[in-house]
Parts: sequence; structure tokens; C-alpha cells
Amino acid sequence: MIKVALDAMGGDRAPRVVVEGAARASKEFDCHIVLVGKERNIKKLLEKTDYSAEKIIIKNASEVINMGEPAATSVRRKKDSSISVGMEMLKNKEVDAFISAGNTGAVVCAATLKLRTLPGIERAGIGIVFPTLTKPCIMIDGGANIDTTPLHLLHYGAMGLSYSKYILGMENPTVGLLNIGQEESKGTELVKEARQLFEKSGLNFIGNIEARDVYTGKADVVVCDGFVGNIVLKVTESFAEASSAFLKKELTKSLLPKIGAILSLSAYRAIRKKIDSSEYGGAPLLGVDGRVIIAHGASNAKAIKNAVRAAIEYVKHKLNQHIVEELNTIQ
Amino acid sequence: MIKVALDAMGGDRAPRVVVEGAARASKEFDCHIVLVGKERNIKKLLEKTDYSAEKIIIKNASEVINMGEPAATSVRRKKDSSISVGMEMLKNKEVDAFISAGNTGAVVCAATLKLRTLPGIERAGIGIVFPTLTKPCIMIDGGANIDTTPLHLLHYGAMGLSYSKYILGMENPTVGLLNIGQEESKGTELVKEARQLFEKSGLNFIGNIEARDVYTGKADVVVCDGFVGNIVLKVTESFAEASSAFLKKELTKSLLPKIGAILSLSAYRAIRKKIDSSEYGGAPLLGVDGRVIIAHGASNAKAIKNAVRAAIEYVKHKLNQHIVEELNTIQ
Repeated sequence: MIKVALDAMGGDRAPRVVVEGAARASKEFDCHIVLVGKERNIKKLLEKTDYSAEKIIIKNASEVINMGEPAATSVRRKKDSSISVGMEMLKNKEVDAFISAGNTGAVVCAATLKLRTLPGIERAGIGIVFPTLTKPCIMIDGGANIDTTPLHLLHYGAMGLSYSKYILGMENPTVGLLNIGQEESKGTELVKEARQLFEKSGLNFIGNIEARDVYTGKADVVVCDGFVGNIVLKVTESFAEASSAFLKKELTKSLLPKIGAILSLSAYRAIRKKIDSSEYGGAPLLGVDGRVIIAHGASNAKAIKNAVRAAIEYVKHKLNQHIVEELNTIQ
Repeated sequence: MIKVALDAMGGDRAPRVVVEGAARASKEFDCHIVLVGKERNIKKLLEKTDYSAEKIIIKNASEVINMGEPAATSVRRKKDSSISVGMEMLKNKEVDAFISAGNTGAVVCAATLKLRTLPGIERAGIGIVFPTLTKPCIMIDGGANIDTTPLHLLHYGAMGLSYSKYILGMENPTVGLLNIGQEESKGTELVKEARQLFEKSGLNFIGNIEARDVYTGKADVVVCDGFVGNIVLKVTESFAEASSAFLKKELTKSLLPKIGAILSLSAYRAIRKKIDSSEYGGAPLLGVDGRVIIAHGASNAKAIKNAVRAAIEYVKHKLNQHIVEELNTIQ
């Protein structure tokens, strides 16, 4: 049976919501879950939930890496942190995947140090799955790496295409390079050089795509550096929250019948749900030799449960093997 | 009376919507408008509108720089383009401001070449005014300059603060540096070095702000390089459009009473209107020695009219003088 390790101490409302998510996952999915963190705390919380006892194991880790801590230093110093211990289990193949909603930088750093990257890959990238009107797409890198080279971007493209094919089930997916214009002459040196690499790579490359086309689904895979990817992700969240608040204010202000307000908000909630990371269950860290899922810091129990589901999919579809194959096709 | 030149040939639906916008502005505002472009076409279109004849002048320009053309080359080659002719009028002080919804790169290039930058400023930046729940904010640079140095970012901060104070009327506005985390250690070399400059500048600097705080109004002025700024702007547009489409689909799907759907969409439209650039009437190109407003390529007649209003404000408030003063206070 697939075995998934969960960082019980990671996330804004950890360990409570992580334990609750694990409990739910144990009832729904066919897998073993290892909760990594402070054993006594976890045990106490677990007892309050409804869970399948034969499916959940606790692995003690005495330290916690907090959200604001510098990534490299904290990973080096806190050898018994839940992130380090969980990653070590993954490295030793005691588990098939590791999920954390904790300090993203620390997760990326620990994964890169302990698991190393896949053959031929220099840097890992976070894949962010997002919906468009017609299909799910993936953006990579969502913020793992900000010292990006053109070759990193090319590899992100290859990894994203594998994910799109084997996890999202897209046939013949396309990859686009996020830029400020479609023309070849546009953009920074980084994207201009990456474009040249993509063009001769043999990957299904459709050229530059502008940010206005991110949510139209023009490309199945959107490639960008980690700084830009992080900004895209968070500015979308920021705007979605602000417009939700605007909407509520607008509806109150106009004194429309209550029924209208309720209907509006429920429709709006459906949109929020579509873009809500808790539905997708976290973002895969692609390019490391192991399966790591980064969940949102604000994850609730449902998001954690869905992250377990995402981890199971990741294992079942042998994604890393496909990534290595895809890389070997690159010219 | 204030005299504003309008690039009649710039924008997705030019010259028609520009001429219509000019006609409306001539009825509403106390200013002279010079429509720059192909005289015969403009004349024909103008005759179809309701306008104040004593307020509108046509200045012939035989060439047009199209949207996709490379900026520097087209400005150099097309000396009689509407952008070049309008900018020349501004340089010669025949007009007080110039507005274009055309090729942004060409407008920035022509402005920098002909007007030069203000004393002490190396690069111009596009200021994007956007709403938050409580107040209007400004982001700079929206895409004028992608070869950005830390000093450029510092100057953007000073220019943004002047705009916030003298045009948006904010008291004691704050400036934040757009980054992927709040900590000093986060981000690219560019933003790390810029942070140091800001910290000793004496400007009202609140440190790094994350993209999730863009629409919360945490900073009155958000500073970023032109590549990132362009992405922020366009990804917001993309998301707003996609969620509007989602909403329509959601409402149809759920077979809710028609009244609910209408109410929802009208509230949603109020949000769209809030973020709609046609309400703000274009973005100022800050840092050049002259008043240039860049309107959205998709501008309608109302957006053009509002751009004329923005240009009048720009002139009245002596913004460029204030920018030079603000720069002189920087440590």
C-alpha cells in the first residue's frame, strides 16, 4: 500500500488541521499515512478525530521550522525538525511521498539536499495547477528557485509537459514562456535565451505568452522563473480576495433583495473554489528525486486531505520516470 | 487654456474611439484637444460626433506605428507617425500633455528620446493606479523599463510618492517594494540592493510587500521592475475576465432564478468597473520631462475621455515639479 508522510507541524494552523486532514484521508483513501512531528501533541489531536487506526502512524520529530525562518540555515540546524525527518524517510524509501504545508523555502532546500535532483535537472521547480474555462493548466516555477537560468526554464517546460500529460491527462499539451509580449525581441535576457532553447528543443512550444493569456488556457504549461511565478500566484489570490470583499460591499450597499445577494455569493464561491488550492491539494515540487508536495500555508483539513490524494496520484503515475524520459527527448 | 494632444491613430479601435473620446471630452472639459493623425480620416469621423468645434484641432501625421512594431526602430524610421508628431508638439510646448493608446514601447521610446528624463532620473516608469477596498494605490513600473537597476527602483518610489500625494491626495503615503517575502534576505539581487537604498533614503518606506498584499492597500505605492509590473497588471486582467466568464457559466448551470443572475452580474460589473482602466483614464509615464499618459490599447471612447481628464489633472497639479523636489530630498 502507498505510504505518505505528512509534516504535521507545517502550516498556519498546524498541527490541528494537518491531523484532521490525515484522519479524513485515512477514511477515504487506500494508503498509509505517517504523521511527522511532536508525537504527544499529534496523539492528543488524533484522538479527537474519527480515523482509521490501522492506516495512521506517528513518527516523532522534536523540532519545528517556523514559517519566517531562513530556509538553508534552519534545515542545516534543525536536524530533528518535522521537515528534515520526513524528507529523510522519503530518501530512505520508508515512504513514497512527503507533504508539507510548512516553510516552502525549507522544504525546497531539504528536498534538494537530501533527495538531489533527477538526472539532468539542475533545479527543482514548484508546479502550480490552476483552472481555466476549459481545462486545468500548470505553471512552473511557483517559487522554488529565483536564480534562474535559461536551461532551468527549458527543464521546467519538460517537467510541466510530463505533469500535464500523465497527471492532468492532457493529450499533446503545449508549453508557453511567460513574457511581456509575444514578439521574439521582447523580454529580459533570461526569457530571450530560454526562447531560443525551447525553439530548438523539439518540445511542443508555442512561443511567448503574455500574462493576459494565463487564465485563458492558451498554453497547457506556463513557464516562468520562481520570482515571477510567486508574484503571479499571490497577486491572483490577492485580487480574488479583494474582489470578493468588493462584491459583498457592493451587494450590501445596493440594498438588493437578500436572495440576490445569497445567489451572487454562492456563484462567486464557486469561482473561488475553482481557484482554491485546497481543491487541488498542493503543488508538486518537480525535478527532485522523490515525490514532494507543497501545500498552501493556509491549508485547511480538506486541503491536506486532497494533498494526500495528489500524492497518491503522483506515485501511481510514475511521474518522475516520465520526466526523465521527456528530458531525454530534448534536443 | 490647457492643451492636450491625443494620438488619434493609437489603440485597438483607433481612430474611431479616440475621435469619439475627444468629442466627448470637448463637451465636458475646459481644454483644447489636438487630434494627431491622418487628417482626412479624423475629419470624417469627427463629423459624425457631437463635439465643441472651437476646442478641437487636427494635426496631420501621415504615418502610423502599429501595435506589434519594434519600438526603437519604428520611432526612428517613422518620423511623421502620430506618436512622433504628438511628442514633438509636447517637446516644443505647443501642447501641455500627450496621450496615446498606441504601441506602449514606442511611446516610451519617443518620450525618452524627445523629452529626456527629469533631472536626476535615469529611466521613466509607467504608474498604474489601481483600487483597493479603502483607497487608490499606484504601482510603478508597469512596463516602461525592463533593464532595471536598484537606483531606478528607488526613483520609482519617489515618483510614486509624489503622484500619491499630489494627484491621489493621500496624506503621508507609504512605499513598499514588491518581493516574494517580507524578510530582508528574500528576493533577487535587484530587490535586495534596492531595499538597502530605500532604507537609507528617508522616503516613507515600509519594506518588502508580498504580492498577496497588492490589493489590500498595505502600501500606497508599490515599486517593482517593468517586467514584473506588466505581469501583475495583465494577470489581474486575465483573472478578472476568466472569473467573470466562470460566473456567467456558474449562474446558467445552476438554473437559478433569472433575477439572481442579473443581480450577481451587476454586482460583479461594479467590481470590474472598479478595476477597469477606462475609469482611471490611463497611466502616467513618470520621470520624463513632459506629461505623457499611456492609455490601454483596448480603450473605449470613455477611457479616452477620462485620459483627457487625467492629463488635465496632471498639468494642474504641477506633478513633475513635485517629483524633482521629492528627488532632492532623497539621501
